[in-house]
Amino acid sequence: MIKITIIPGDGIGKEVMNAATHVLDSLELNLDYIYASAGYECFQKTGSTIPDETIKLTKKTSATLFGAVTTVPGHKSAIISLRKELDLYANIRPVKSYPGINSLFKDLDFVIIRENSEGLYSGLEDYTREGAVARRVITRRASERISRFAFDYAKKTGRKKVTAVHKANVLKKTDGVFKDSFYKVGEEYPDLEKEDFYVDATAMYFLTKPQIFDVLVTTNLFGDILSDEGAGLVGGLGLIPSANIGDKQGLFEPVHGSAPDIEGKGIANPVAMLLSTSMMLKYLKMEYEAENLEKAISAVLKNGKVVTPDLGGNYSTMDMAREVSKQI
Amino acid sequence: MIKITIIPGDGIGKEVMNAATHVLDSLELNLDYIYASAGYECFQKTGSTIPDETIKLTKKTSATLFGAVTTVPGHKSAIISLRKELDLYANIRPVKSYPGINSLFKDLDFVIIRENSEGLYSGLEDYTREGAVARRVITRRASERISRFAFDYAKKTGRKKVTAVHKANVLKKTDGVFKDSFYKVGEEYPDLEKEDFYVDATAMYFLTKPQIFDVLVTTNLFGDILSDEGAGLVGGLGLIPSANIGDKQGLFEPVHGSAPDIEGKGIANPVAMLLSTSMMLKYLKMEYEAENLEKAISAVLKNGKVVTPDLGGNYSTMDMAREVSKQI
Ligand SMILES: CC(C)[C@H](C(=O)O)[C@@H](O)C(=O)O
Ligand SMILES: CC(C)[C@H](C(=O)O)[C@@H](O)C(=O)O
Repeated sequence: MIKITIIPGDGIGKEVMNAATHVLDSLELNLDYIYASAGYECFQKTGSTIPDETIKLTKKTSATLFGAVTTVPGHKSAIISLRKELDLYANIRPVKSYPGINSLFKDLDFVIIRENSEGLYSGLEDYTREGAVARRVITRRASERISRFAFDYAKKTGRKKVTAVHKANVLKKTDGVFKDSFYKVGEEYPDLEKEDFYVDATAMYFLTKPQIFDVLVTTNLFGDILSDEGAGLVGGLGLIPSANIGDKQGLFEPVHGSAPDIEGKGIANPVAMLLSTSMMLKYLKMEYEAENLEKAISAVLKNGKVVTPDLGGNYSTMDMAREVSKQI
Repeated sequence: MIKITIIPGDGIGKEVMNAATHVLDSLELNLDYIYASAGYECFQKTGSTIPDETIKLTKKTSATLFGAVTTVPGHKSAIISLRKELDLYANIRPVKSYPGINSLFKDLDFVIIRENSEGLYSGLEDYTREGAVARRVITRRASERISRFAFDYAKKTGRKKVTAVHKANVLKKTDGVFKDSFYKVGEEYPDLEKEDFYVDATAMYFLTKPQIFDVLVTTNLFGDILSDEGAGLVGGLGLIPSANIGDKQGLFEPVHGSAPDIEGKGIANPVAMLLSTSMMLKYLKMEYEAENLEKAISAVLKNGKVVTPDLGGNYSTMDMAREVSKQI
């Protein structure tokens, strides 16, 4: 039995998580789910957005499925705490066109690898007399680690090119370190093509020539922005999964939030959560099941009938999950 | 006679500047051009990318037209120095669809107001033992100043809504200051609608519902990224002008760079430079001429014949400039 942690969270997080466990159940894998709390409701019950038991548990299991949480203003973010506590330093965000989706581009398939441990997420901010200052920390260690991760990922998945994204013309020192680390590590991968662009140019190329991208690697906040832009390219956040990977654990979450506006209606699109589940299975070396799950999701989208309202259908979250199970 | 500084710069900067002065000449305005140097060639001649005389001159004239410069690695950026020296704290970047342009959206007309004096452009970066750290400085003074500028701009141009873009869920202190300043100043503008989004969500909304935007106001680097994304929405950098505005001077520049790859061929698209020139005329209170110039550019684009190769035509930079003059 492989133990995994399940953190449904708040709002539609819980609803899409039910869809995920339904589909996982139907795969009849040897998985043992252990539920844990985090987020807004958890804060109301326990006074913490991310209790110690939850963190301890995630450290004991090799994978965590995370739904979505509602922010509690002034309190620490559950997901950012988990990324830090488990040192989940690589955030993988695929940008892939699926059939049957109303999107700007139909032929995209690239992956953004976001450094997930430092940069402007270092939590080093202070008020000053005039306002406030945040520190953007870029280390050689983290830059080389994420570059190596990106090159290894490209190699393993048969991709050809890795593009580093930075703003070294303005952030000459911090992004200088990032860029130099990228090319230094890149020397160990002679078969992969390397290039680098400024983040502003990249934000434009996503629209004018997105087909040139294969694997991108970038610092934390640039990755945050570009991956949401990437989501917009292929139909919006309802479809975008992500993997947060460390040396010991992986945490898998849809990029969308808890969506309080549609909470309780049972109509949340489960695709991002199901694709995140597929990424988890791949991480757990159940490649065959991971691929079958992704194919089943793709088939349901292509068919376009049993889908949630945001995709033009009349079906519920669980209807769609059952349809995916049927297609597997 | 109104004196203006002309800085052609490098590469196609010089070519599109010739187009701009040609069109300005044909308007027969009372303008006196004073030429000044900056950029790569200037560095080779004088040892400085932005000589003191150039800065002094721009301080004496009320407006500067700036072409584009090639970066000299390791030396200060001419444009960033000018923004700082003249305290050009507001960068106005329109995102507008023009007829005849092959673009993702045909109906966009919004404006990004980018804070141009601080944030990650403060130049406060240091190497550390582990790598480097950059300081993102956000002050109440600059945040209120740019918010006021954005609200005033909205009022003056008959727009209805101002959207603040930030990342206050992660940069709680710095972007907390920015967001609070926005709403505080906003109270003085009861007739304008206000809203705020996270920068990542905004990068997605640009693609999924760009029509909701009217005036956006944001910090320096977010404005840099979003305005290039905005350029991508309406056909690319060849069309995007910008205005850098301070309390005493204005500097007007195309968002594109010096494009060494097409330098000397005479085929650079002059539209971004000509639209920047129109923004300058508006700033100099020559509203009538500014509008006529913009209409003429629009007509030439709509007609789609006498245009440069990037727009599908066979004409040169100067051919296109002459056609614009003819249409005025
Ligand atoms: C919720 C927020 C803290 C988070 C981030 O900024 O990383 C989210 O936008 C994401 O992309 O996972
Ligand atoms: C050239 C560069 C320093 C500049 C910036 O980052 O501001 C450019 O990208 C811009 O948008 O004007």
